[in-house]
Amino acid sequence: MTTNADQPKTPARRRAPAGAAVLREDVTEAIRAAVFEELAAVGYARMSIEGIARRAGVGKTAVYRRWRSKLHLVLDVVSAVAVMGLPVPDTGSLQGDLRLLYEVTARALRHPLASQILPDLQAEAARSPEIAEAVQKALRDGQASVASGIVMAAEKRGEVRPGIDEELALDLISGPLYWRSVVIRSPKVPKGYLDALSRATAHALKAL
Amino acid sequence: MTTNADQPKTPARRRAPAGAAVLREDVTEAIRAAVFEELAAVGYARMSIEGIARRAGVGKTAVYRRWRSKLHLVLDVVSAVAVMGLPVPDTGSLQGDLRLLYEVTARALRHPLASQILPDLQAEAARSPEIAEAVQKALRDGQASVASGIVMAAEKRGEVRPGIDEELALDLISGPLYWRSVVIRSPKVPKGYLDALSRATAHALKAL
Repeated sequence: MTTNADQPKTPARRRAPAGAAVLREDVTEAIRAAVFEELAAVGYARMSIEGIARRAGVGKTAVYRRWRSKLHLVLDVVSAVAVMGLPVPDTGSLQGDLRLLYEVTARALRHPLASQILPDLQAEAARSPEIAEAVQKALRDGQASVASGIVMAAEKRGEVRPGIDEELALDLISGPLYWRSVVIRSPKVPKGYLDALSRATAHALKAL
Repeated sequence: MTTNADQPKTPARRRAPAGAAVLREDVTEAIRAAVFEELAAVGYARMSIEGIARRAGVGKTAVYRRWRSKLHLVLDVVSAVAVMGLPVPDTGSLQGDLRLLYEVTARALRHPLASQILPDLQAEAARSPEIAEAVQKALRDGQASVASGIVMAAEKRGEVRPGIDEELALDLISGPLYWRSVVIRSPKVPKGYLDALSRATAHALKAL
């Protein structure tokens, strides 16, 4: 009889120390990875705990021991991604900072996981206030905090008016590339596009 | 025995002329309306032909007689919305035209149907090239054709450079409000927001 809280399907795995029911971190990580893959493959609505467990190579109880429901599992995974964050660019000019932000964002949005999971979570957000809040938080802590750092640096350099509407600034910075990559789903960003976008957005911010 | 192709569940309805199996337009419209309501209520993934038929008050065969599958039904409904289009504003200035476009768009995006169905179809678009194409077409024929008309009028007035990158112009015009309404899901547009957005976007377009 094993005292390990998880019942791995591969019996060859090493047992946990006797006497304590521990949650193995490698199983937790395998489940987290499986959630991303399942989300991308079938989407939130069709995703099941069974499917996640199967993909992770664990039993359903291993999932339920860690998260109460599919919703809690997805919220946890989304929040974990948000914490990763991005460094604020520091090129010395508003246009340069925007150019670097767009470079990183365009690459991230091209990733199949982002381009499939983001629309999916937004669809769920329209029905679940809990998911809406988690997605908003993830977006705010990630992309928005970087954009906000760029705007503050531009304020300090005198490139934009002090006390500009930061919410509107974030919409102007984040909207166009998201629209093109995720909404219109343009397969790739044309040559020169990011340069022109950064120049135009810098002009828009200076007009606020 | 009825010769009507539909078997309405309310027997009181008037029969079609004998001898021809016709598809009753009122039944078609009831099904179309039910699709919108089901999409908003449960989303594309969870939506079933049974649920649509129940909501429309018809039998499943009435649905299958008109559309081969759930996918074809949704594509038809989405395309029908695209055709509705919007009039191109004509206020005499780029900023004024943008202001009017945003007014109309903000109101449309606040509608529960738009704010629930759009993210939903985009989630499906990530998995189905057919839905992706229909959604792109709907967006292009609707919002984008209006934005394009505004840009062309501004070119004629000399407010923007002739031959500006129209794709980028559309991203700049459509992205920020969509980002705020559908992605961030801000409950309402603050006072003065649309004015500031139109001014900033006009500046961005003039920089192209």
